[in-house]
Amino acid sequence: MMEFVINQDMLKTATTNSGALFYQELGAYSGVNKVAAKVMHDIKLVFGYLPQATGDRTKLAKHAIIYGTVEHSPMLQKLAEQKRIDLATITGKREVFLFQVIEQPFEGVESALIIAGSDKRGAIYGLFHLSEQLGVSPLVNWNSVKPARKEVFSLGTNFIYTSKEPSVRYRGFFINDEWPAFGSWTTHNFGGFNAEMYDHVFELLLRLKGNYLWPAMWSARFSDDGPGLANAELADEYGVVMGASHHEPCLRYGEEYKYLRGADSKYGDAWNFITNRDGIIKFWENGLKRSGQFENVITVGMRGEQDTAIMDKESTLADNIAMLRDVLKTQNQLIREHVNPNLAEVPRMLALYKEVEPFFYGDKDTQGLINSEELENVILMLCDDNHGNLRTLPTEDMRDHQGGYGMYYHFDYHGGPVSYEWINSSYLPKIWEQMTMAYDFGIRDLWLVNVGDIATQEFPLAYFLDLAYDFDKWGTDAINQTDLYTKQWVDQHFANKFSEFDRDKLFDLLTGYTKLAHNRRPETMNVNVYHPVNFKETDQTLEQIDQLLQIAEELYQAIDAEHLSAYVALAYYPAVGNLNLQKLWLLTGKNNAAAKLGKLEANQLAEQVQACLRRDRALVDQYHTIENGKWYGLGLSEHIGFTHWNEDENQNPVLMQTWPANKPRLVVTVDGTEQHTEGSPWHKHTLLLSDFLQPDIEQASVTISSVSDQEAAYQIINETAWLTCSRLSGSLDGKEKTTEVITFTINRAAMNGETEGSIVIKLPTGACTLLVKATQSKFTELPEQTYIETNGYISIEAAHYFAKQNATNAQGDLHQFHVLQGYGKTLSAVKAFPTTEHFTIGKDAPYLDYQFVLSETGTHEVELYMQPSNSVTNANTLFCGVQLNDNDVSIINVLPDGYQVNDHNWGQGVLSNIHKHVIKIQADKGLNTLRIYAVSPGFVLEKLVIYPEANKPAASYLGPPETYYVGK
Amino acid sequence: MMEFVINQDMLKTATTNSGALFYQELGAYSGVNKVAAKVMHDIKLVFGYLPQATGDRTKLAKHAIIYGTVEHSPMLQKLAEQKRIDLATITGKREVFLFQVIEQPFEGVESALIIAGSDKRGAIYGLFHLSEQLGVSPLVNWNSVKPARKEVFSLGTNFIYTSKEPSVRYRGFFINDEWPAFGSWTTHNFGGFNAEMYDHVFELLLRLKGNYLWPAMWSARFSDDGPGLANAELADEYGVVMGASHHEPCLRYGEEYKYLRGADSKYGDAWNFITNRDGIIKFWENGLKRSGQFENVITVGMRGEQDTAIMDKESTLADNIAMLRDVLKTQNQLIREHVNPNLAEVPRMLALYKEVEPFFYGDKDTQGLINSEELENVILMLCDDNHGNLRTLPTEDMRDHQGGYGMYYHFDYHGGPVSYEWINSSYLPKIWEQMTMAYDFGIRDLWLVNVGDIATQEFPLAYFLDLAYDFDKWGTDAINQTDLYTKQWVDQHFANKFSEFDRDKLFDLLTGYTKLAHNRRPETMNVNVYHPVNFKETDQTLEQIDQLLQIAEELYQAIDAEHLSAYVALAYYPAVGNLNLQKLWLLTGKNNAAAKLGKLEANQLAEQVQACLRRDRALVDQYHTIENGKWYGLGLSEHIGFTHWNEDENQNPVLMQTWPANKPRLVVTVDGTEQHTEGSPWHKHTLLLSDFLQPDIEQASVTISSVSDQEAAYQIINETAWLTCSRLSGSLDGKEKTTEVITFTINRAAMNGETEGSIVIKLPTGACTLLVKATQSKFTELPEQTYIETNGYISIEAAHYFAKQNATNAQGDLHQFHVLQGYGKTLSAVKAFPTTEHFTIGKDAPYLDYQFVLSETGTHEVELYMQPSNSVTNANTLFCGVQLNDNDVSIINVLPDGYQVNDHNWGQGVLSNIHKHVIKIQADKGLNTLRIYAVSPGFVLEKLVIYPEANKPAASYLGPPETYYVGK
Repeated sequence: MMEFVINQDMLKTATTNSGALFYQELGAYSGVNKVAAKVMHDIKLVFGYLPQATGDRTKLAKHAIIYGTVEHSPMLQKLAEQKRIDLATITGKREVFLFQVIEQPFEGVESALIIAGSDKRGAIYGLFHLSEQLGVSPLVNWNSVKPARKEVFSLGTNFIYTSKEPSVRYRGFFINDEWPAFGSWTTHNFGGFNAEMYDHVFELLLRLKGNYLWPAMWSARFSDDGPGLANAELADEYGVVMGASHHEPCLRYGEEYKYLRGADSKYGDAWNFITNRDGIIKFWENGLKRSGQFENVITVGMRGEQDTAIMDKESTLADNIAMLRDVLKTQNQLIREHVNPNLAEVPRMLALYKEVEPFFYGDKDTQGLINSEELENVILMLCDDNHGNLRTLPTEDMRDHQGGYGMYYHFDYHGGPVSYEWINSSYLPKIWEQMTMAYDFGIRDLWLVNVGDIATQEFPLAYFLDLAYDFDKWGTDAINQTDLYTKQWVDQHFANKFSEFDRDKLFDLLTGYTKLAHNRRPETMNVNVYHPVNFKETDQTLEQIDQLLQIAEELYQAIDAEHLSAYVALAYYPAVGNLNLQKLWLLTGKNNAAAKLGKLEANQLAEQVQACLRRDRALVDQYHTIENGKWYGLGLSEHIGFTHWNEDENQNPVLMQTWPANKPRLVVTVDGTEQHTEGSPWHKHTLLLSDFLQPDIEQASVTISSVSDQEAAYQIINETAWLTCSRLSGSLDGKEKTTEVITFTINRAAMNGETEGSIVIKLPTGACTLLVKATQSKFTELPEQTYIETNGYISIEAAHYFAKQNATNAQGDLHQFHVLQGYGKTLSAVKAFPTTEHFTIGKDAPYLDYQFVLSETGTHEVELYMQPSNSVTNANTLFCGVQLNDNDVSIINVLPDGYQVNDHNWGQGVLSNIHKHVIKIQADKGLNTLRIYAVSPGFVLEKLVIYPEANKPAASYLGPPETYYVGK
Repeated sequence: MMEFVINQDMLKTATTNSGALFYQELGAYSGVNKVAAKVMHDIKLVFGYLPQATGDRTKLAKHAIIYGTVEHSPMLQKLAEQKRIDLATITGKREVFLFQVIEQPFEGVESALIIAGSDKRGAIYGLFHLSEQLGVSPLVNWNSVKPARKEVFSLGTNFIYTSKEPSVRYRGFFINDEWPAFGSWTTHNFGGFNAEMYDHVFELLLRLKGNYLWPAMWSARFSDDGPGLANAELADEYGVVMGASHHEPCLRYGEEYKYLRGADSKYGDAWNFITNRDGIIKFWENGLKRSGQFENVITVGMRGEQDTAIMDKESTLADNIAMLRDVLKTQNQLIREHVNPNLAEVPRMLALYKEVEPFFYGDKDTQGLINSEELENVILMLCDDNHGNLRTLPTEDMRDHQGGYGMYYHFDYHGGPVSYEWINSSYLPKIWEQMTMAYDFGIRDLWLVNVGDIATQEFPLAYFLDLAYDFDKWGTDAINQTDLYTKQWVDQHFANKFSEFDRDKLFDLLTGYTKLAHNRRPETMNVNVYHPVNFKETDQTLEQIDQLLQIAEELYQAIDAEHLSAYVALAYYPAVGNLNLQKLWLLTGKNNAAAKLGKLEANQLAEQVQACLRRDRALVDQYHTIENGKWYGLGLSEHIGFTHWNEDENQNPVLMQTWPANKPRLVVTVDGTEQHTEGSPWHKHTLLLSDFLQPDIEQASVTISSVSDQEAAYQIINETAWLTCSRLSGSLDGKEKTTEVITFTINRAAMNGETEGSIVIKLPTGACTLLVKATQSKFTELPEQTYIETNGYISIEAAHYFAKQNATNAQGDLHQFHVLQGYGKTLSAVKAFPTTEHFTIGKDAPYLDYQFVLSETGTHEVELYMQPSNSVTNANTLFCGVQLNDNDVSIINVLPDGYQVNDHNWGQGVLSNIHKHVIKIQADKGLNTLRIYAVSPGFVLEKLVIYPEANKPAASYLGPPETYYVGK
């Protein structure tokens, strides 16, 4: 029995005349051969020697690789006829491959690896499958992810693997918003948007198991820049299906019309189907004639130039629909004439983007384009709200549409409320939550993600394409598997670069930075996002950031020079870029807050912010120069302090400086609150320390800060037996030492029924009295998971429900809430499944119970914190059910009245990545149960905050941290 | 004929045995002799030799000075009997003196100067009158104002001058709020609040023609600190009438009770007339016994300790009045017993301060203390609002009160809304306007001004006391004479120190800095007062400040070392202190505004602010060290950035720093407005230059500023023939050169009917279009002084009325408006006279007409800017009459409904030194006349701003600058 083996020896001794590893047929697809050459190069990276390829089977080595495409390979045909392989398992399928070891396919070859594609892309995926098996990363060339060296690779004699058809038909990305970054990069490295560059992009796409691309189109003309048609021809060679963006129909790119139009142009000089019908038709016709030969998904429909509406504001809905119907009819006819008379065989796509959506749905008086014959077999592309939240999704009826559906998703966006184009800020759990819902709702024909400049999006892009390729593995059923995916991704790319211990750190770094970016994207950060003091959210976030930055540096130190570029490009640069930027703004917030109290610490904080600003530039510079400028230009997007939706007039943080007071002065602040005093007898000098009202809190602190640069002493007089202070006196110089944190520890056993204590802090300008309130009991007489209001409010993490009730529908399907781990801005989230279901309370709606004890009877407000889902229906509503104790159930719309994607509420939601909705309850003193029913799809609950009416807890970005519950 | 002569020769040759200048009688008042000794020392300063004094008339020189007091001088008595002098002209009068040269009063003396006082103070004023005639400043010792050297002084043989009785009976000041400044000073220089120090204070008071003092009382006990009674004895010797503050009755100072009280004290341990009646009475009794021997104005009544209410909050008005009546009855009885059985001969004072005011007036149900027998012959002391604005004044009926009235005025205050204790911030025109009204209303028995630490208040204090001493000269009839006073004051103190040219500068410096302090006191300045850009009010104020600072430095350079201390103390330190502080905040405003636009100029401005902060400290240090620490401690009061009513937790300005953008960027701002752009095509990039809508404006400007530290060029394309630009291109480096002002000049002759032009400024990130709107006509077809609305609003200086109408009352008294020059925050003000009159419209009310042309018919708002006068009556109303065109007259209360001194509106008024009141008018397109009638006393109008309803001009502190009027 012969295994299939590749080893260094056989490669070393091979020559062009003998011992070739690859059998290359004359009639094979040239693109498949090109990919085989890439795989050969991969083998060189692994074994040190470039394998040979031959078309003469006598020159093959003892172990050979025979690859080809069904119906394009005499050799495969022959082996199949000899029953050595069974092509029936793949024939007629989409993009599948057979990967099989056979012994002695013919004389001279002892063992062969057969890689047979059901079609061109099947063969290509099969070839790249070999690279993957050899430990070669799909990012081997794109990101210089060098594989581990191997001595030998073997597959058992009976090894056979047949790939599945990809879950989604068209899977790809969109290079967009390509200036200044991608444009500078390709101009610098390749001289333009040409085929030399696209070769790399196509390879990336195919290795990631994608098959579909929207090319760069801001200033580029894909069909001209190759030069000539070289880009399109290369795509076709590789089997890359080309698309064009939603407003670029009939294989014509947007810039083309700008380029060709004019007074003397045969295409006229107006992008107007009414006034320049003939010119536009001619323009489309020639586009289809030119590029119809290639494999495309042809965009149909018509929008205005550069992502604008096509008709003027006075046109009615009916006018628009009629015009669009005419356009579609015309385009279909052109496609029949110039591409394929059988329209059903021509992949076409209409994007229901922006104003096109209403044209599709129509209104009660006007029939939309939905179900019209012009759209038969056309893929209807829906979209997210440009910020990663899906909009309307196909209803059950709509899912019958023959053409199927697509989804246009964003990892990058140039538009309102604030663009994000710099580096990756997408978070896998969100992509999972949203894209699985898309799939569940029947969007399975086209997934396209806008990746901007591509660079730094490789991690979420791989996930997006893997999800699209193998939904069974990563999709709806793989709940809470994004960490597993991330771990695998880390191993795939870094197993030979980092120890397992370091790879765990890298996992932390990737999940950590993307979680923080999920909480707030870099471009939308500013000094007013996180509260500088309340609930210590700034300090705690800074602590997380510093831990992650520490990891990033440790890994930077740990990695070999050979692998540095890959680490920088895939992790260090996007992670540190994100983290440093968040830190920049958090420190600015602290600086501003400190300055407003005259704290000299403000000046030290300002220096720290300046260090972050310098770091930001140094980081981009490093990224631009590493590996001889491989990434030159890709960091050029502005990313600090956006004041408009785009980068224009963006602003670096305004740092505040303080000037020392004239005499020794200290200010005391209660950490986590805005309370402060210098102890003046004439003004507020009693501060409240309320932390110990939470029975699980054992330490709390105040900070003493310098207001002058003169030596200033303080003294602490502790008048409370059950409290201890970390120190009782000290002195600050206001120069080096500008702050001191005093920590108080409670000894609840010594409280003896007391609930209040006090501590006096003597200061140079008076004395501060610290009133300390405390709760002794842990309320263990109450059931576990019962929240206790001890300090004016309760904050509940949605995952910490008291009880969970599943339901079933008439068909017996289980309806239930699941916890989505790591999803949401603090801990996690809960969401009901199946995601497509509109649940009926009392029948099939699952619910969760939250139990809590209030100190007063009366109207309370419950603030629900939710993932900012849009409505999946045209009605723009998103319901859940709420029931307090034995009261009636209220069905509430958690979206504001009249909510619309692109309105102000929506904008706030996508910037903060949260929707909040307040409901009122008439609650009792003592124990209460709040029941939350799932109703509409898209309801994803993260947190509940309960407080007496009009007594909202202090302002914060993340909301109050979870309060005490029994058993916490 | 022999002149009276003093010359160097006679002084030089005089010995103690012969040639004495001063004839000193044994029986003379010792205080008068002490003053004579001071005058002798003055003569030494002038002539270089100390004159001799003798009681032996044979030892007198040929020219002698004979001084004494009527009925206390045998010599004067004899000369009178000899008919050489006529004492009848002074005998029985208050504080007057005869100053007469006579030949050969007796053997051996050829010529004598007789200085005869009607009483002790008359003699003292007469002696100091000689010093003044010799050119010795009243501040000779207090402020080291050294006189010019003289060879000779002579008075003609027939010279005779008899002084007038002072206009106000008791004239003095209050040393208050004496920590940290005055207290540190006297502790450092004299070892406490003792007689050594008070000798200087008494001298200052008497030389300034005052006679009345409230001593320091925060931590001092005047009657104990002398040591012992030395302070009181010295005051009595000098004829200084001692008072005590409004809450310190019966010659007991506030700190005394604190010092003496206690469980075992005979005075008990409660400042409570109900619970500790006997103790309190005993306390008062012993005070009167101890100090009743001296000349006093005895405070009567009772308030709580340390300026608080005496009874608790539950006590009714009637309770309080009854208690106070009992107190007064008791005190009167104690005074009868221990001071003088004839109460009418004992000067007593009740302060109607704070809560005492309602006890005096009572209400409709409760008879107040007004007209009660307990107050017979008691001076009723009214007060300002602590910020220089009088409160209620005696009605005509009340003026009959036998005891007369007093006024407690403030140049310094420790209290809300914000204290002002650092340096002089009082403005003579305001003192004139307020104190003349006090006098007109019959307040003529006691004028007391709180001068805090005294230091730097010498200038307004001299004015206050001169006004009180000679109201005929400086009072109501001396309208607009404060400049004359200031010029005389400058000459009096600096004639021998500066050239006339430099004295003019010093005049500008004194009026300039006090005017700016009048607009805003130092302690109340902050970054939000002046608008950093609107109407260029910050830039223009900075320009004024820089001119004044320049003057201050020029004078500093010009003055001799000998006179430096006087110049620093009287002018340089308070002027530069004020100016530098105003500059500090104005630059901070510019810094903050620049930083918010990302201008790198912000960093340069921050450095300038820091220079001001350093200057502030250096200035105080200089003041503390000059002349061997003569002023040590007097600059210690905090004065920057008050956040409370007192200095606690005051804050230095928060400076904002910018960090350069990543690429060349410039921002254009339209000077005087908040408009700005970097020229982005996606955002606002058309700015409006509206300056030329005012027909008299010929130049306007924009500023181009660096946003990055990279070389950035701009280019200006002028598309308008009637505009010229100061430059058409340029470049900023963002390092040294961060701004460039581009000035546009209009050539109206070339407009040819055009009203709009445009200028394009090309910037690194786009282009800014400057839309230039202009008015060609000067509207000379309209009458002069007609305001023309060309830019949305009209701003009128009150002095620029179109017409003025006087009126007369039944008695034939002329009622008329006068312009108060230099009064008010911008140009001047108008006020109707007599100041005591309540005018009746249609009968005796004078009025002013304002004429203006509007561009639209419709509701307009007229915002009246007024000196923040309080109501002179209990009704808390202040009326004026308003009449538009032929419409009915409206009588409007310009104070907000329910206005009260100490409420929020009042606080805003005293901080900003303005009251604003908006009235609505239904105005016509075209010509309108607005008539303003005087109604209530205290109506002082500074400015009128007219604009269409709800279209208020941009925010500013000083209000929009005056707009165009025909003939401007």
